[in-house]
Amino acid sequence: MNGSGDERVTALRRGEGWTAWRQIADELTADIEAGRLAAGAQLPTEAALAARFGVNRHTVRRALAGLSERGLVRAAQGRGTFVEAPRLAYPIGRRTRFSEIVSQAGREAWGDLLAAAAVPADAATAEALDVAPGAPILELLTRHLADGVPLSTARTCLPLPRFSGFDRRYADLGSLTRAYAAHGVADYSRLATRIGARPAAADEAARLDMAPGRVLLAVTSVNVDPDGARIQATRSLFVADRVELVIEP
Amino acid sequence: MNGSGDERVTALRRGEGWTAWRQIADELTADIEAGRLAAGAQLPTEAALAARFGVNRHTVRRALAGLSERGLVRAAQGRGTFVEAPRLAYPIGRRTRFSEIVSQAGREAWGDLLAAAAVPADAATAEALDVAPGAPILELLTRHLADGVPLSTARTCLPLPRFSGFDRRYADLGSLTRAYAAHGVADYSRLATRIGARPAAADEAARLDMAPGRVLLAVTSVNVDPDGARIQATRSLFVADRVELVIEP
Repeated sequence: MNGSGDERVTALRRGEGWTAWRQIADELTADIEAGRLAAGAQLPTEAALAARFGVNRHTVRRALAGLSERGLVRAAQGRGTFVEAPRLAYPIGRRTRFSEIVSQAGREAWGDLLAAAAVPADAATAEALDVAPGAPILELLTRHLADGVPLSTARTCLPLPRFSGFDRRYADLGSLTRAYAAHGVADYSRLATRIGARPAAADEAARLDMAPGRVLLAVTSVNVDPDGARIQATRSLFVADRVELVIEP
Repeated sequence: MNGSGDERVTALRRGEGWTAWRQIADELTADIEAGRLAAGAQLPTEAALAARFGVNRHTVRRALAGLSERGLVRAAQGRGTFVEAPRLAYPIGRRTRFSEIVSQAGREAWGDLLAAAAVPADAATAEALDVAPGAPILELLTRHLADGVPLSTARTCLPLPRFSGFDRRYADLGSLTRAYAAHGVADYSRLATRIGARPAAADEAARLDMAPGRVLLAVTSVNVDPDGARIQATRSLFVADRVELVIEP
């Protein structure tokens, strides 16, 4: 297909140790860095890229895997490959609010409620919420998006009976801040945060539209209401290719 | 080799969907969690484990790879496989000192100077240190250990001529805090910290005695002296299996 007359065909340097897939990855990287492929844009199909570069689809696939390994694109299962936006700077401090942070970055914030259940507190959650082990808590599994792209998923625990019905409010309002306000908690603040990192498991990668094996920032936090009562213990997993945490002491 | 009479031979459940390498990984995990294999201990050789479990070395290697993927052991190139210590809680705040944090955890801290050079500041470093682009800076490549195990590697930039000779002091003293003190900077504090995460490249993994593809916490920070002058811009890479960052606002 080389020299086929298609104006988008790009000549690759043959021989002399040049690997076709690396050249294609470099060309696409240059397109992304120059903004010819904008953040959020869908990449051309494998067939279109194979035609453009005059290679087979296997070579295109290897090049796309290379871009994905570098965090420049993400493959959304069954929907194609998309250019990653620059990483969102996410401040961790006394007042950390997902919806405010995302809105201030000019993106639209939303939180999906994936599951909710009333369960007895395990030892770690009981300590975090300052309740007795086995005390009833509300556990929420959520996913948090900016302009429709998942940035994080979280497991959030709240004490019962105080926050009975919080799950329905969260499902309606799409924001913890708004759901707390609807529950009469006008403000809350962060007590402590612990930050680790690990590769994503397959189910987490699918939930977050990321390539398996890419990295998650694992963030554990506790929030208190204005009276100092512990109202939230959360284990969040942030897609490290999409978020950078910022600490300003 | 099964039933060879060696008292350390462990019977594996054959058939019924049991994978030999998973059973071996589970047995070794139980040994680690029960403390029979202590933090820092070297695992038996592949040959010894193959004899113990009555399998071939390929199966042992697969089991060890499984433990490594879960962050329970690390393979030190050419020196064997070691049990990982529990993750060190590493507070990030105004006064973050590697040597103090490690000492307070009851481990011995040391910093290796791997390379040093006087170079012109690139744009990002110039902004971080509040100097003109191209101004002379001292760049140090270091590696930081607790009880001889690498926790992080860092690229640290200091303004010249103020810190001329700092590299030799650091090489002698093994601590930034002590090298600053020797330079007349009795105290310094953290201005801002940014935290990301990504897989380790092969050279980084080798420098940090970790398996390639395991995860690094990438921490960027700026320190100022008591007069507010910017004296240090650092890009640290922490082994995520060995360190958890703690933020207390």
